[in-house]
Amino acid sequence: MITNTTIVVKLGGTEGVDFSAICRDAAALLEQGQRLVLVHGGSAEANALGEAVGYPPRFVTSPSGFTSRYTDRQTLEIFAMAVNGKVNTLLVEQLQSLGINALGLSGVDGQLLRARRKASIRIIENGKKKILRDDYTGTIEQVNAHLLNTLLDAGYTPVVAPLALSEMGEALNVDADRAAAMVAASLKAETLLLLTAVPGLLQNFPDETSLIREIPQVKLEGLLEIAQGRMKKKVLGAREALDGGVGQVIIADGRVEQPISNALAGNGTVIK
Amino acid sequence: MITNTTIVVKLGGTEGVDFSAICRDAAALLEQGQRLVLVHGGSAEANALGEAVGYPPRFVTSPSGFTSRYTDRQTLEIFAMAVNGKVNTLLVEQLQSLGINALGLSGVDGQLLRARRKASIRIIENGKKKILRDDYTGTIEQVNAHLLNTLLDAGYTPVVAPLALSEMGEALNVDADRAAAMVAASLKAETLLLLTAVPGLLQNFPDETSLIREIPQVKLEGLLEIAQGRMKKKVLGAREALDGGVGQVIIADGRVEQPISNALAGNGTVIK
Repeated sequence: MITNTTIVVKLGGTEGVDFSAICRDAAALLEQGQRLVLVHGGSAEANALGEAVGYPPRFVTSPSGFTSRYTDRQTLEIFAMAVNGKVNTLLVEQLQSLGINALGLSGVDGQLLRARRKASIRIIENGKKKILRDDYTGTIEQVNAHLLNTLLDAGYTPVVAPLALSEMGEALNVDADRAAAMVAASLKAETLLLLTAVPGLLQNFPDETSLIREIPQVKLEGLLEIAQGRMKKKVLGAREALDGGVGQVIIADGRVEQPISNALAGNGTVIK
Repeated sequence: MITNTTIVVKLGGTEGVDFSAICRDAAALLEQGQRLVLVHGGSAEANALGEAVGYPPRFVTSPSGFTSRYTDRQTLEIFAMAVNGKVNTLLVEQLQSLGINALGLSGVDGQLLRARRKASIRIIENGKKKILRDDYTGTIEQVNAHLLNTLLDAGYTPVVAPLALSEMGEALNVDADRAAAMVAASLKAETLLLLTAVPGLLQNFPDETSLIREIPQVKLEGLLEIAQGRMKKKVLGAREALDGGVGQVIIADGRVEQPISNALAGNGTVIK
């Protein structure tokens, strides 16, 4: 069953997702020769650090209904500390302790992720449209697949934190689901696996019995309506990945014993 | 004057050292084809973050007079956030904005730095000897030079944060000067350059006119007596580097306009 193709796994930062179970499962798959790239979030850690240092996060909603972190320069540095400094380092540590030669990178390293900066963003606040400036977020446009392949070929397992580099060389906060999608597309991965704290895409959120088990790529567009909150970005990421040549996208439960194997066995929402 | 040999530059975290000047100088040298590896500290940032989150640093002194950070697990995570998350990411960002394809790593990534954990450390407190346990610091024993050479050959400039991996796969805080020394030795670097906030090793600290301009390797041992505080670790690092086959070690001023070129021109304490 194991081939030489690549699987990209996105680990959600949401509570309930068991990073150790994912790491153990990843170790077993790597043992069998699977090529694996991990991409992680870390919003919860960034929020906690922001609160701890007296600079709490601010979330904004776009006119089309997407929620994102407003990232001024200070928030960007807090985000880098939490996501690249803590989540990434501790994930690599955990994988190393399981015998996986993991190597952590953020998108600024070696220009791994290049993004277009959204210096001003339109938001809806109290029903009114506003423009926020000095935002350090971006939309990924290019992935340095050569760097990832160089590391994979040398036996390392890349662990990617969601920062990117702007055209001007500025560090930017990027969405981790879409980062995982772009990474998967750049590697022409067989599977992009988005692990989260629900069993997959739900017809009636949060009713877990309403799991949608399979979605043909052509019907994906319509599902942006059903997807709630963060799930919208996963659906968007799924579309970007499939458009980029990824074989299949699975949105699956990160809270189970063997989250990766479970998902690869078809448990979750399979989109292809 | 520029050759294909490697220079390892340690950037001090001390106030007064101008990271932007170092980055600009590094960019000019890389332009001329110089192979460069940067290693940085970040104690000041780690202290500031510790204070900000209500977990201030604790410094301890060993019976032989070395001062170091007491690193319990929470301090280790704060250290990782500040040093790997902030200092490393922002240095890479700054280098990238100057057109250098920098790539940040800490010693846990790809087992770059393997260390022996000092789980218990002997300290002197109020004149009494004590033993502290649960310390996450280590002494570097092995450097993954293959990883550094792979990255250098592929055109990346490695930027190394002072964390290492224990035999058990735990992340450890390590001394940045000695990390730079071990990295330089592993690469058989022509020069290890330790940039700091004084002009070099001073006969009568802090009298800057008492700069020692040249030290033959054989006389290095005796200088551990003269070296004050943090300078002790630089002298120790210098010895480790020279023992490991590094051509020369220069301890030099990081506060000047072109800190690297200035030091390579012989300004500072040259040890060989």
